Amino acid sequence: MVDKGLIFTIFGGTGNLTYNKLIPAFYQLYKEGRMKDNVSIVAVGRRDKTSESYREEFRAVLEKKIKDFDVELYERFNVLIHYFKMDFKAEDDYENLYHYMNQTDADHNGSGNRIFYLATSPMDFPFISEQLKGKGLLDTGGFTRAVFEKPFGYNLESARGINATVSEIFGEPNIYRIDHYLGKEMIQNINMVRFSNQIFSAVWNKDSIDNVQISVKESVGVEERGGYYDTSGALRDMVQNHLLQILALVAMEPPSTFDTDHVRDEKVKVIKNLKVNKDLKDKELIFGQYEGYKGEVKVDPKSQTETFVAMKCFVDAPRWEGVPFYLRTGKALDGREAEVIIEFKVDTCCNQFDDSAKPNLLIIKIQPEEGIYFRINTKEPRSESKLMTVSMDYCQSCNIFYRSPEAYERLLLDIMNGDATLFTRWDEVESAWELVSEFTEQTEDKERYMTSYQFGSSGPQESHELLEKDGRKWWLLDDLKSEFMMGG
Amino acid sequence: MVDKGLIFTIFGGTGNLTYNKLIPAFYQLYKEGRMKDNVSIVAVGRRDKTSESYREEFRAVLEKKIKDFDVELYERFNVLIHYFKMDFKAEDDYENLYHYMNQTDADHNGSGNRIFYLATSPMDFPFISEQLKGKGLLDTGGFTRAVFEKPFGYNLESARGINATVSEIFGEPNIYRIDHYLGKEMIQNINMVRFSNQIFSAVWNKDSIDNVQISVKESVGVEERGGYYDTSGALRDMVQNHLLQILALVAMEPPSTFDTDHVRDEKVKVIKNLKVNKDLKDKELIFGQYEGYKGEVKVDPKSQTETFVAMKCFVDAPRWEGVPFYLRTGKALDGREAEVIIEFKVDTCCNQFDDSAKPNLLIIKIQPEEGIYFRINTKEPRSESKLMTVSMDYCQSCNIFYRSPEAYERLLLDIMNGDATLFTRWDEVESAWELVSEFTEQTEDKERYMTSYQFGSSGPQESHELLEKDGRKWWLLDDLKSEFMMGG
Repeated sequence: MVDKGLIFTIFGGTGNLTYNKLIPAFYQLYKEGRMKDNVSIVAVGRRDKTSESYREEFRAVLEKKIKDFDVELYERFNVLIHYFKMDFKAEDDYENLYHYMNQTDADHNGSGNRIFYLATSPMDFPFISEQLKGKGLLDTGGFTRAVFEKPFGYNLESARGINATVSEIFGEPNIYRIDHYLGKEMIQNINMVRFSNQIFSAVWNKDSIDNVQISVKESVGVEERGGYYDTSGALRDMVQNHLLQILALVAMEPPSTFDTDHVRDEKVKVIKNLKVNKDLKDKELIFGQYEGYKGEVKVDPKSQTETFVAMKCFVDAPRWEGVPFYLRTGKALDGREAEVIIEFKVDTCCNQFDDSAKPNLLIIKIQPEEGIYFRINTKEPRSESKLMTVSMDYCQSCNIFYRSPEAYERLLLDIMNGDATLFTRWDEVESAWELVSEFTEQTEDKERYMTSYQFGSSGPQESHELLEKDGRKWWLLDDLKSEFMMGG
Repeated sequence: MVDKGLIFTIFGGTGNLTYNKLIPAFYQLYKEGRMKDNVSIVAVGRRDKTSESYREEFRAVLEKKIKDFDVELYERFNVLIHYFKMDFKAEDDYENLYHYMNQTDADHNGSGNRIFYLATSPMDFPFISEQLKGKGLLDTGGFTRAVFEKPFGYNLESARGINATVSEIFGEPNIYRIDHYLGKEMIQNINMVRFSNQIFSAVWNKDSIDNVQISVKESVGVEERGGYYDTSGALRDMVQNHLLQILALVAMEPPSTFDTDHVRDEKVKVIKNLKVNKDLKDKELIFGQYEGYKGEVKVDPKSQTETFVAMKCFVDAPRWEGVPFYLRTGKALDGREAEVIIEFKVDTCCNQFDDSAKPNLLIIKIQPEEGIYFRINTKEPRSESKLMTVSMDYCQSCNIFYRSPEAYERLLLDIMNGDATLFTRWDEVESAWELVSEFTEQTEDKERYMTSYQFGSSGPQESHELLEKDGRKWWLLDDLKSEFMMGG
């Protein structure tokens, strides 16, 4: 709960993110009483709009988007939203903004607390930041925080360039780099499940865990985002941020406390200690492109951009010696789901279960279903010693009384409260770019070893072979669920 | 599956056990094709019956007892049953039995395989055994096995006396001492769950387990069994056999294989290494008697027999250092249920969860519901770091397509197949009697510290205090289930 008044400014106020995520998230926070009337949301955009017309647009958006839309509540909420017309690439406009914000502060008895959310291209981050500073918009009596929507740069070099500027202007503690995956309920839950259960914390190591699988699958292709995507690819778009962040949470050493920097200290160690065989001919790092990608709108017809990545990596730490972490992500796959799968070793006790026991699996279901799946062996009823598996399948998002919060609700709240735990610190971003940059440099090899896969398939065959040659397979939640139905 | 013909003789053929358990179990085995037509069941009794009238009685019993009773099947099955009238206390009658059995063998092309099931008072075990040997009933070309219904003796001395005789006559490998709890589905499952799941086997020790609770509760009083019960009591009737056997399975070291003697070797070590503070004033061993017990039929009005026992014990082994095993059993309690509860330690990682995390619980539900309950902590949805518990509650006996087999089905089958794993070896029985005898000797103290409890209650207050003074409590499955409903 934010006690002091503040101005929350969004650069990119007419963009998709603002319409689909940010304003709806503010609305939910307001509805639940987690955000008070002392916040002024200033949406900045080039288009001709007034605050009134802008608010009307959102009434329509929210009416459509939110089941139990409350008009009366919206009337109270929408007066917090203001539209400010400006071109954020035009220096002069910042002077207008300066006066506008001072006036807003004065009108609302504000304390000078300001948050600037840059929902723009990363290339604009330095310029906007410089202008905010140069034109005095950061000289207030209150706090000034900057939020940078992902991606934070396009590669190691650009990220470093951006960071050099913005960190000097705002200072690291005031910078919130968005990785909205970190705001997802079940990503937040990784720490909870792992560390608050003796039964998991005690076996979270190489002695008991056989391998870890992290999958983030999208069923759609690039759709209208071909222009952006073709300059990025799955590695930059997904692995560099979401997948590495998830991996870091799964693999990190227990932090001394859950305070922001203790957690980040441990996460960054994981990313720095990640080992991947980047020699593409060994096929432990696989790039794939779905058939038809080159024909997508705004995509280079000769594009070598990957729409799929799978890789095997190792965390260089005593806890994880010899335990592979398999990552995969891609577009145009056979489902839209994200999950972390911990596959435990099969117990070979008593020379009894070598053939019949199946590995315990702990699955953290990130989306679309949120919850925990857990599989154990038990004796098949009536049999002497034949085993079967039974599963716990806890689905928190299936509860009809429960509206799964959007990641941005939690993130906006944390920004307003000054809690940066669910945001990525510069050294995390930098080390993730360092890792990813190693692979992106090998342009020739990438072309040679690029695999292809059908739209709507489970990805390139090479991704399956990656596990098969280790005697493993990608576990599929749907398969497991039907297995359980048959068994139990 | 038994290949060779055999004669299965039951002493006590007109007793409750035969009517309610043994013949129904044979019927089920037959129905499922696990017992062939080459078995002759000879029920021995003093009463005037013919095989025909005896079979008719069972038709009525089974019709009533079994839902989908199959008359046609029963017609095929019942010809296997024979009634033989004799007084097993009369020496001369054994000569008749001798001739009858030889004739039966001849009629059925038998190979001389014989099983003698002594469903009698243990005081009759030696005499019957001696007669069987003396009159030549064991001199056959086939195997001769003896099954002894529980209890095997009334105390250490009587058990040793009985055993000296019967073991000389039959030899330990041919002796099957019944503890029908070992035939229950979920008791058999203890080994499977424990050893085939990495997630449990790896934490099955003092580092991760806080305590173990074994409860066997009966809701009825002594009913018509007061005469027997008053000379026995809960310690002899339940603890000496069922509870110690369960404890042995939970606490034993992994056997090198699951072969009969490897398992028994490990079980007996547990019983031998069990430490209980037998000084009753310390209240770590609690005797209770329900109010009204002294007025029960055939019970001594001044009876000091306990109908309830609770105790705290330790297994003297590195694995279990400092881990209390709490046992309790009794009649006239607030429910009829048996279960093993493994309470894990609360993880204190990161100074985060001391207050909010609840212990992981693994509950093996033995009866009436059979299954596994398992509880973990997870983040409460929407909250920042508040925990809640969610549970897996696998109920294998709830499956409408599944008829939970009676323990005796498995046990009879094992006897016929010559597998003694689910029966107790002499050294197990002896060491259990040794332990129990230590407590029963203190008659004066027992009278002084005998507690009392209401019929239908959760037992004497002292039983709860036993755990409370350790900062613990008896977990109740019903409470846990409602907790889960509230949480998830």
